[in-house]
Amino acid sequence: MGVGRSERKAKRPESEGDRFPFGVLDQVWDGSRAAGWGWEGARGADLVLHSHARLLLFGVLLKTAMSPLTNPPPPATTTPAPTRPKLHDKQSEPDHRELRIDKVGVRGLRFPIQIRDKAHSTQNTIATIGMYVDLPKEFKGTHMSRFLEVLNAHGSVVHVENIPDILYAMQHKLRAKTAHLEMEFPFFLEKTAPVSKMVSVMDYTARFDATACGPEIDFVLTVITPVTTLCPCSKAISRYGAHNQRGNVRVQIRSRKSVWIEDLIALVESSASSELFSLLKRQDEKAVTERAYENPVFVEDLVRNVALRLNAHPEVTWYKVEAENFESIHNHNAYASIEKG
Amino acid sequence: MGVGRSERKAKRPESEGDRFPFGVLDQVWDGSRAAGWGWEGARGADLVLHSHARLLLFGVLLKTAMSPLTNPPPPATTTPAPTRPKLHDKQSEPDHRELRIDKVGVRGLRFPIQIRDKAHSTQNTIATIGMYVDLPKEFKGTHMSRFLEVLNAHGSVVHVENIPDILYAMQHKLRAKTAHLEMEFPFFLEKTAPVSKMVSVMDYTARFDATACGPEIDFVLTVITPVTTLCPCSKAISRYGAHNQRGNVRVQIRSRKSVWIEDLIALVESSASSELFSLLKRQDEKAVTERAYENPVFVEDLVRNVALRLNAHPEVTWYKVEAENFESIHNHNAYASIEKG
Amino acid sequence: MGVGRSERKAKRPESEGDRFPFGVLDQVWDGSRAAGWGWEGARGADLVLHSHARLLLFGVLLKTAMSPLTNPPPPATTTPAPTRPKLHDKQSEPDHRELRIDKVGVRGLRFPIQIRDKAHSTQNTIATIGMYVDLPKEFKGTHMSRFLEVLNAHGSVVHVENIPDILYAMQHKLRAKTAHLEMEFPFFLEKTAPVSKMVSVMDYTARFDATACGPEIDFVLTVITPVTTLCPCSKAISRYGAHNQRGNVRVQIRSRKSVWIEDLIALVESSASSELFSLLKRQDEKAVTERAYENPVFVEDLVRNVALRLNAHPEVTWYKVEAENFESIHNHNAYASIEKG
Amino acid sequence: MGVGRSERKAKRPESEGDRFPFGVLDQVWDGSRAAGWGWEGARGADLVLHSHARLLLFGVLLKTAMSPLTNPPPPATTTPAPTRPKLHDKQSEPDHRELRIDKVGVRGLRFPIQIRDKAHSTQNTIATIGMYVDLPKEFKGTHMSRFLEVLNAHGSVVHVENIPDILYAMQHKLRAKTAHLEMEFPFFLEKTAPVSKMVSVMDYTARFDATACGPEIDFVLTVITPVTTLCPCSKAISRYGAHNQRGNVRVQIRSRKSVWIEDLIALVESSASSELFSLLKRQDEKAVTERAYENPVFVEDLVRNVALRLNAHPEVTWYKVEAENFESIHNHNAYASIEKG
Repeated sequence: MGVGRSERKAKRPESEGDRFPFGVLDQVWDGSRAAGWGWEGARGADLVLHSHARLLLFGVLLKTAMSPLTNPPPPATTTPAPTRPKLHDKQSEPDHRELRIDKVGVRGLRFPIQIRDKAHSTQNTIATIGMYVDLPKEFKGTHMSRFLEVLNAHGSVVHVENIPDILYAMQHKLRAKTAHLEMEFPFFLEKTAPVSKMVSVMDYTARFDATACGPEIDFVLTVITPVTTLCPCSKAISRYGAHNQRGNVRVQIRSRKSVWIEDLIALVESSASSELFSLLKRQDEKAVTERAYENPVFVEDLVRNVALRLNAHPEVTWYKVEAENFESIHNHNAYASIEKG
Repeated sequence: MGVGRSERKAKRPESEGDRFPFGVLDQVWDGSRAAGWGWEGARGADLVLHSHARLLLFGVLLKTAMSPLTNPPPPATTTPAPTRPKLHDKQSEPDHRELRIDKVGVRGLRFPIQIRDKAHSTQNTIATIGMYVDLPKEFKGTHMSRFLEVLNAHGSVVHVENIPDILYAMQHKLRAKTAHLEMEFPFFLEKTAPVSKMVSVMDYTARFDATACGPEIDFVLTVITPVTTLCPCSKAISRYGAHNQRGNVRVQIRSRKSVWIEDLIALVESSASSELFSLLKRQDEKAVTERAYENPVFVEDLVRNVALRLNAHPEVTWYKVEAENFESIHNHNAYASIEKG
Repeated sequence: MGVGRSERKAKRPESEGDRFPFGVLDQVWDGSRAAGWGWEGARGADLVLHSHARLLLFGVLLKTAMSPLTNPPPPATTTPAPTRPKLHDKQSEPDHRELRIDKVGVRGLRFPIQIRDKAHSTQNTIATIGMYVDLPKEFKGTHMSRFLEVLNAHGSVVHVENIPDILYAMQHKLRAKTAHLEMEFPFFLEKTAPVSKMVSVMDYTARFDATACGPEIDFVLTVITPVTTLCPCSKAISRYGAHNQRGNVRVQIRSRKSVWIEDLIALVESSASSELFSLLKRQDEKAVTERAYENPVFVEDLVRNVALRLNAHPEVTWYKVEAENFESIHNHNAYASIEKG
Repeated sequence: MGVGRSERKAKRPESEGDRFPFGVLDQVWDGSRAAGWGWEGARGADLVLHSHARLLLFGVLLKTAMSPLTNPPPPATTTPAPTRPKLHDKQSEPDHRELRIDKVGVRGLRFPIQIRDKAHSTQNTIATIGMYVDLPKEFKGTHMSRFLEVLNAHGSVVHVENIPDILYAMQHKLRAKTAHLEMEFPFFLEKTAPVSKMVSVMDYTARFDATACGPEIDFVLTVITPVTTLCPCSKAISRYGAHNQRGNVRVQIRSRKSVWIEDLIALVESSASSELFSLLKRQDEKAVTERAYENPVFVEDLVRNVALRLNAHPEVTWYKVEAENFESIHNHNAYASIEKG
């Protein structure tokens, strides 16, 4: 109960041998850039992929078959890049406050990314990014510029298949045990209107929260899906009409195998009174109006419908569902949430 | 046509003698504080109030009868407060770029304010404030701290009846011809539900933009009112139901005499499919659902209804009406605007 | 008692008879309103205070000693208010999905509140409020209007001493085991500039997250304090100057006894390179500039300094400290966080 | 420079024959889609280019030389697409309020776009879009879905060279005299750190506001550039150090010929105490710290420096410059603005 308990519970402690829950290879790296920036070569290490069945692909197709790799990235033992003698390295001074820092890094950075979607093509979008590591109590500070080096090592676009590599690079370059990467971005789908069949693009929001603790990677996929909700009470008690509104459903999941963003979206859209479309001709507007009226859902129904479907999903191991409706009859919102116990 | 032309056109040129469109006296000042901060005494000047019939009261009752005052605030001829010799006054250095600055000052400052509402009582709220003056080409910079001195001269709460005084104090203290004050704040009304008659508080947003150019004051009142809009097309073509949603209507006005915020709100609420309420019991929900269904309005109807009412308002001399609906069937909004030509 | 009454009077609950854990009695209630809304009288019940040692006062002085009360609020066994037969109570229908809902309620509601500050006076501000309860799997929905009834039961201003009463009222009216209340609001302090001694008001942000599970109340106080941070590395390596910027420190705490918002603010401000002020004359600007230069802190130092002080605080039992600096040399922010293990 | 390699390529149907004022041919159209949506063929019309000298290219290379075209788009005389008889066209009903609407349309729509940057390659980004037309007093409403048809006519990515075509298509499809298009999006540049020469990507914000009134197009380019500002007063009066902070400079321009976004950015960055970089090694941090200290600017200096440079720019015909600094010693911002008289 209560604010402040951490959300990131399950860290996959059962790592043995060379297992990586992720197992995404780094073939998408821009080797020339990496070389140019003095990368120490950790990327030459092979990555084991025994457990690739458990990889989380965030709706991204693996470009190549996963092949077993032999060694995890080495613990950070190499010396830092040499600095000019008179440019004192304040961050490396010892600290005596005996306080470890959970997360330190950079936040609020926008960067172009590419993700692969279910239709096996890529989608270009812009992510807002945060990158953090833990800092042992012995050190005064971390080296913030190294986060930017890692991010830019892949050129001017980051491919999401690189997320594990980015995490391992952060661990290595920043000599950290734990590395975190968060990326929030718009995601687009082409949708077909129900009657006219006209096609239009609609925007959603997706987010990746990935943490590497040693070789173990924990990944949470979040998708925010806007829907229509029509009130069952209003419908039941009124001679005609029923108040309805747009609502946002925010679903966070952990899963054994990859779950497509598109699939989470579809799961949510089928739980509401109606899904949304950008382009609706009159015959479509009639259809969605009637569909919503035929499928009234309280915000409670909405989160329960989604939770039921997630409970039934073979790969989902944890979820949190939140729905917030912009009530058309009030100047406040209705909210409900369920977290898998 | 086009972006970027200034909105602040009409500056009330018809001032002669000692006329102040505002005429609010400064008896609400906290004299002790003013004295404590070395106020030069400009406030001791009398203000003329011949044209107080034209005062804009922003829905605020004058606490005292307006009395004629004899002199406008003197042009800023007094010397600035002495500074310690070695604390160089960079801002007062000459500038040679021959460029006057339209507005310079402080922005994004939160401060408690009190306003008087139609029920003749006061309302405490929190404003986000901006204060600016113009800067002649001769001067390198303005003295930002003086804005804060003016704001805090009234103690820890600003009474909106003080707005003209604040503007004149800015002109004086900052030796400026033109002074601007912007304040945006939540505004609350007690509303009575239509059937149960239960009372609850609902929030709106109001904003004051006041400019003093010499003795002339231009004042724009803005009120943002949330409403329900139900789509006439959806209703006409569907067997049952009709999509509806919350929308925000933003009205800006200039007027000869004061217009109550409450009156602008009522004007807007009567232009929509239905007004909103915080607390609705089932019988109220039925009433508003049916009312909305009986009164469908496109976003175009909404702005036209408001514009018609504003055209008919005896005191309103200029307005701009904008409505934005959070469409329940799309992930984008519908928007319309009319500005009085 | 209506909107806008009461300037800064004094909520004083002259408590006798029934004593409540917070020391706040419900005499601030508008009895007539309560009666009018069919309040069942739960307020007459005694409240158990076995755990009152853990009550958190959010910077509010207890007017009365906390005394044990004998009975927790009764489980909600009374029948709901009668509804007109044809206004079907959809929310009370049974639900068969076997899914309990963690939180359901209203969110994003603005409301005037009053809080007592350390100087033993009251402060009027505006809170953005969320109110939620849990919903057992048997029920289809909650009765959203009852949240608004509870909130408005106290008139048009909510006194924070009423928070436990609000939680218990929610449990009772909504027949829930667990009730949550969140309130986020600007908080103001008068500050004295270091050399000129001029006084000005500055804004901070505070937040209450209170949860009642049965009679037990968990309370988290959050305070967001803006500060100046000057970079030690930049200072060490540059011939002159050092980059500095504004940063926000967000501290969340649980404590055995009340902790003043002002005290948390002071604790944070003493941990930074310098505190901020609204009004600074030149001699003050010189002082804070030099002070910051003499006290460089990395974002890591900032969170460690705060954490050390919180570790030493006799009443604080849990905390989370986060700092985010708006780096003056980058278009992204530096971030660090420590949570008490 | 290869930001944003696009996968969504096919948009260049290289149609010759009709040439358009922007030099953008309609080869980017997805002809099959256009046909599928019943496009009436207005694109076959020639467009008058008497005023193409005033076309603004928003930093986009003209693919073809601008050539005069003989005819403006025909007034919208064609009949609207047939609708099923029972799907009443409410929007086309007559209106009797005698009120023309200045702008009506859709807002807040996110959509992928491609723009061409100075290095003659394309950049993929995401725009937030608004599309509006005027509505004569005779008509009750506009046909909102047609905006979406126009936007999606180009496939799932909009190329900014298409902006004039989009405007003309809006005029035609919505039978309007005036059409407006606004697009705001992140824009990325690769920057080279001053000493280490390391390359990293940094984000800016750009915005297009384009209006077509008949054949005439008005275009305003806005660029928001973050910079470092160091206070001259603080530097002058302090023994050591000087407060500095990040600031945002927002420049809006009209110009005779195209102005590259990159050029506006460079103009602003050279006006500040220092430009920003994502990736700075210690030697770079030293350089920018010292550079800022050597180049203190008040917010007034910043806007004057930018205005001077814009006054000297051969193509700029109008501008508005605004700067807002997130003061490191205050919890509010400093602001200044100049508009070309």
